[in-house]
Amino acid sequence: MFYYFDLLGTAAFAASGVLAAIHKRMDFFGIFIIAFVTAVGGGTLRDLLLGADIAWMKDLNYMYVTIVTTIFSMFFHREVGKHNWSLAILDSIGMGVFTVVGIEKGLMYDHFPLICIALGTMTACFGGVIRDILANEIPIIFRKEIYATACIAGGSVYFGLQYLNVPSDQLTLYVASTVVVIRVLSLYFDLSLPNIYSRDED
Amino acid sequence: MFYYFDLLGTAAFAASGVLAAIHKRMDFFGIFIIAFVTAVGGGTLRDLLLGADIAWMKDLNYMYVTIVTTIFSMFFHREVGKHNWSLAILDSIGMGVFTVVGIEKGLMYDHFPLICIALGTMTACFGGVIRDILANEIPIIFRKEIYATACIAGGSVYFGLQYLNVPSDQLTLYVASTVVVIRVLSLYFDLSLPNIYSRDED
Amino acid sequence: MFYYFDLLGTAAFAASGVLAAIHKRMDFFGIFIIAFVTAVGGGTLRDLLLGADIAWMKDLNYMYVTIVTTIFSMFFHREVGKHNWSLAILDSIGMGVFTVVGIEKGLMYDHFPLICIALGTMTACFGGVIRDILANEIPIIFRKEIYATACIAGGSVYFGLQYLNVPSDQLTLYVASTVVVIRVLSLYFDLSLPNIYSRDED
Repeated sequence: MFYYFDLLGTAAFAASGVLAAIHKRMDFFGIFIIAFVTAVGGGTLRDLLLGADIAWMKDLNYMYVTIVTTIFSMFFHREVGKHNWSLAILDSIGMGVFTVVGIEKGLMYDHFPLICIALGTMTACFGGVIRDILANEIPIIFRKEIYATACIAGGSVYFGLQYLNVPSDQLTLYVASTVVVIRVLSLYFDLSLPNIYSRDED
Repeated sequence: MFYYFDLLGTAAFAASGVLAAIHKRMDFFGIFIIAFVTAVGGGTLRDLLLGADIAWMKDLNYMYVTIVTTIFSMFFHREVGKHNWSLAILDSIGMGVFTVVGIEKGLMYDHFPLICIALGTMTACFGGVIRDILANEIPIIFRKEIYATACIAGGSVYFGLQYLNVPSDQLTLYVASTVVVIRVLSLYFDLSLPNIYSRDED
Repeated sequence: MFYYFDLLGTAAFAASGVLAAIHKRMDFFGIFIIAFVTAVGGGTLRDLLLGADIAWMKDLNYMYVTIVTTIFSMFFHREVGKHNWSLAILDSIGMGVFTVVGIEKGLMYDHFPLICIALGTMTACFGGVIRDILANEIPIIFRKEIYATACIAGGSVYFGLQYLNVPSDQLTLYVASTVVVIRVLSLYFDLSLPNIYSRDED
């Protein structure tokens, strides 16, 4: 169940990478590479820091999901691009699941809760950061702050509920929901962020 | 023989880093660092992902080649800069060799063919990506798509020919040639890419 | 003693990250993440390349120092921003200490002197490079050249003095002083670098 959510998050991140790459009019392999980096970048950084095997190198499903998502999103990119809200929600679910995956992999390697929250946040956010750096989008980190804040909040909920002895299979649901709700609310209300930025530049 | 090609590729990548850094009027050490990152960046990422020892940390020849290339390219940068085509061809040979090195190192660590192609592509392309990010060049990935496409094609040729039982010492030649030919043809014909980009921005 | 200098360097780097992030009007977690990446980025790259445990994952003091520095710098950012020279000197001390930490950790893993100097330079400079990439500051590497040059000089002093049998507890002082002096002098006299850059762009 959890594994399928992980692949769903991978697909959502890959789709957001495809849209960013199409926006820059790249060819098929360029699009695929941006999609792949966005989808697996966070998990790769986490596994490097842990000294663990890199997840996507041992399990080809991550690559298959990215290939299928890339081909699908390319053919239907006008339709995919129109559903900004569906994508944002999928993307938020991906972030929620990736936050939990990062935390639990950190715990598996006996790290402190604070470090596990950092690992969860990286797993969820780093792929999007590399996507923006590679696509040379100007306001890289301005939208990211909402990302990171949601993941850190989700991570705190994880250890808060664990302290209250909430069973671990329910934790995933609560943490992912926290991330999704914060993220969606911030997308819905934070309309002023771009204005601050352009005011800064002028 | 293969080892010397690897060092030749390192020198070609270092030279392209020197030119990018001189274009930004950096001092000697700044130029050297960009040259070094361009030359060994791809192999470093590959070795980190494989959990292998980092090649240039165990064999100083990579650093010596970069130092000599940097000093040479600095003194003759006007002449080096004029020979765009010689550099592009050297650079393509470097990419071809690096693609094969990445694939074979992936096989040595028992990875799937698809993962090995990804490792070969990273080895060949990642150095140039970091060079562009560090030099803050605007169209980072637009020229890279040709890079990546050539390496993925070369990697497919590798496993296609291996399947046809072509002896492994001939594989290197065929794969490197594939990469060089695709790269040179795309450089020669793809004159319209910058136009698409500027049209996009306006 | 050395350990406390290391934490002092961490705090100085974190403060420079806070100022960069505030300049981009990020929220608390965004600021904290930039501060943390700036403070531990160089050491993380060094530990990844060495195949060592990541320092900040095993010792929470690095994270506590970053959290305290972030909160402090946020509340007093107007005052902190005014003391550019105090910050530059703190930052230089951080670089000096980080250069020595990088070299000695490289030696501990039996690497060549040249590789150790590279590791020292990375430890000292890479955090600032990521900070600038994430904050999307335009002249990323132009100020970095002074950074790198100072660290490479410091590293050369390390092995020069070691060859002359200077006791290792004095080495730290000499190397850090070299880095600080070169860095402060270059900041003081190199007023022309921005001009070269803008001339380039026009």
